Amino acid sequence: MNTSEVYMKQNIGGRVGRGERPALVLVDFVNGFNDPDLLGGGNIPDAIRHSAELLELARTLSLPVAFTRVVYEASNVNTGAFCRKIPALAALTEENPASEIVPQLAPRADEYIIRKSQASSFFGTNLAAWLIWRSVDTLIVTGCTTSGCVRATVIDSASWNFRTIVPRECVGDRAIGPHEANLFDMDAKYADVETRASLESYLRGIF
Amino acid sequence: MNTSEVYMKQNIGGRVGRGERPALVLVDFVNGFNDPDLLGGGNIPDAIRHSAELLELARTLSLPVAFTRVVYEASNVNTGAFCRKIPALAALTEENPASEIVPQLAPRADEYIIRKSQASSFFGTNLAAWLIWRSVDTLIVTGCTTSGCVRATVIDSASWNFRTIVPRECVGDRAIGPHEANLFDMDAKYADVETRASLESYLRGIF
Amino acid sequence: MNTSEVYMKQNIGGRVGRGERPALVLVDFVNGFNDPDLLGGGNIPDAIRHSAELLELARTLSLPVAFTRVVYEASNVNTGAFCRKIPALAALTEENPASEIVPQLAPRADEYIIRKSQASSFFGTNLAAWLIWRSVDTLIVTGCTTSGCVRATVIDSASWNFRTIVPRECVGDRAIGPHEANLFDMDAKYADVETRASLESYLRGIF
Amino acid sequence: MNTSEVYMKQNIGGRVGRGERPALVLVDFVNGFNDPDLLGGGNIPDAIRHSAELLELARTLSLPVAFTRVVYEASNVNTGAFCRKIPALAALTEENPASEIVPQLAPRADEYIIRKSQASSFFGTNLAAWLIWRSVDTLIVTGCTTSGCVRATVIDSASWNFRTIVPRECVGDRAIGPHEANLFDMDAKYADVETRASLESYLRGIF
Repeated sequence: MNTSEVYMKQNIGGRVGRGERPALVLVDFVNGFNDPDLLGGGNIPDAIRHSAELLELARTLSLPVAFTRVVYEASNVNTGAFCRKIPALAALTEENPASEIVPQLAPRADEYIIRKSQASSFFGTNLAAWLIWRSVDTLIVTGCTTSGCVRATVIDSASWNFRTIVPRECVGDRAIGPHEANLFDMDAKYADVETRASLESYLRGIF
Repeated sequence: MNTSEVYMKQNIGGRVGRGERPALVLVDFVNGFNDPDLLGGGNIPDAIRHSAELLELARTLSLPVAFTRVVYEASNVNTGAFCRKIPALAALTEENPASEIVPQLAPRADEYIIRKSQASSFFGTNLAAWLIWRSVDTLIVTGCTTSGCVRATVIDSASWNFRTIVPRECVGDRAIGPHEANLFDMDAKYADVETRASLESYLRGIF
Repeated sequence: MNTSEVYMKQNIGGRVGRGERPALVLVDFVNGFNDPDLLGGGNIPDAIRHSAELLELARTLSLPVAFTRVVYEASNVNTGAFCRKIPALAALTEENPASEIVPQLAPRADEYIIRKSQASSFFGTNLAAWLIWRSVDTLIVTGCTTSGCVRATVIDSASWNFRTIVPRECVGDRAIGPHEANLFDMDAKYADVETRASLESYLRGIF
Repeated sequence: MNTSEVYMKQNIGGRVGRGERPALVLVDFVNGFNDPDLLGGGNIPDAIRHSAELLELARTLSLPVAFTRVVYEASNVNTGAFCRKIPALAALTEENPASEIVPQLAPRADEYIIRKSQASSFFGTNLAAWLIWRSVDTLIVTGCTTSGCVRATVIDSASWNFRTIVPRECVGDRAIGPHEANLFDMDAKYADVETRASLESYLRGIF
């Protein structure tokens, strides 16, 4: 049996479905991850373009919107295991333009910018508490990289029991092999990976 | 550039290194994940065989050892998003033999058996607190599946700043494509993936 | 200024208010905490009696209901700092009747029994995820002891941004001084402490 | 029986003891909590004075040192339940001098300043991961207020299984009743409350 046959036989990849109170999180769409000479490349620019359009709809519908940035102290006092694996992360300090949200997605004053130092947007942050306060039951995850902070965020989102949706065109990675492999895993186990069009149709339907 | 070239250019995949106080966690090596008709298959039997030998060394060296099992209430009152994606999980209740550790790895009385209901061995458990109490700085992660609960455990282990080691032969998956893809991702971003022989040489060296 | 004047001047003790989706958690109402020779005493029997009546209403209204028990492994492999402070806790193993929910509050099959090994009902458990799955926005906390596991649970409940309500008659402690001191602190900083009658009036009003 | 007799009979208040790798955290010693017209008063100035001397020793011995500040976004997008109870907290934004560490305890560049929005220094932060990276087994907690963020931090510290020490003179509160009541609870259940002299003697002994 090939992989698809095994998964079908074991009934892996059910639909988690959609709730009534969605929120949008945009993971690590910062300049450094949009620069092929730093940590970017691949289809990340496409993901930013699609996410900008999705963000516009989310704002029209008044969805809660959160952004994440990787930010370490200038002294690097809070770097750890993650920066051993990816040393370039340690340069993403508060003042470094590489750690700022890309201009195409510039946050509004009432949107939540979350600083994080690990892969998942939930780890060491108040994202879950912020979503609970807003009675969110469905989390739309966009961002980069698909195989890194998006995947980590999606696992946690599912573990926190948020119905989790990944609009396929709105996540990107520096290399396409890991991008596709992680879309496959996430759709099988943690989230409903779907097209942006399908997601937007759902969003328009509930408001 | 291909994936390897991109990662090399961006300096992704550094070595996290090894500490002085390792512990061993065996993720979800239960009968249901060793049964190709339920949730098993692929190279999971090989991973169990290799893990049994590693476990023997860990016991000789008196390393802290923890096992995880996926266990839901018989009433299924605590199933959630994860069981929507993989419905077969919901059958793994306390009394179901499918949720028991495989006999090849039968835990001893002084080893910690952790019940969990999400992918990561850290989520909703006391694993991190248990490791802190033992001053563990290095976590060896074995188990199944590589693309599921092992990957999720490894991400969290790195986020908690444990130096994380994945002995390649000691993790397995129902399908080889996702197995390989996740070994690649984990070695790039969260853990040092190495051979069992290399790991055992390190373990023997520190005791 | 006395304490009340200081708190009034600094505007401490605002009302967190009530949401639309309440759930009930009953903390550690187990035999061992209802036995003055083990870990009980004081006004805990009264708290159990009042909680039984509140539980009946919660069941009538189909609120999500969770119970907690302190449970350690028979081998004590997972005891730690908490059991150094309160050694009697370590005897609360799965099979010990002292760790069972008191008969006056016997859980139904569809209610969630959470095993925990730390003070807070949220720590190392899936309580928050379970509440998120049910879109709960308001957590009613009853149980014992007021100065121990109730206080710890209430702090976490507030930090997770659940509107938290403590019905005064439904929490108890082995000694009245700490009971009263912790009701004061919780009402000032984390929860709305109110009468059972007031809470029940709210519950009846939303269903 | 009075409270002490009950606790003695039930053997509550054992010593958690001290480890070999201590770290120091200074909770919320910011200007706003040192100003009786905002959120300060009582014996907080004394606690700052004593903590400054303890900090000097910690620096001499090269202990890991972390400070916490309560910081909300200027837009208040991340306020929640806690700010409903204590509305003055919401003014503690990044640029507000009230949210800055008091000058007597000015952090050095290599010390970790943690921004938090809940009571516990562990909630929604990377404090535990930061301590794990440094192999810390013992956490010394100072700060204010005893009945608020110190108590919440101490509960979590114990739950994470750090041996937790509270030097009595180094914590303070706006009112003495809650201060004393919480020292009692913490010493009974979560931490060893001791004199600064006793703590310093231990610290000098291990280095």
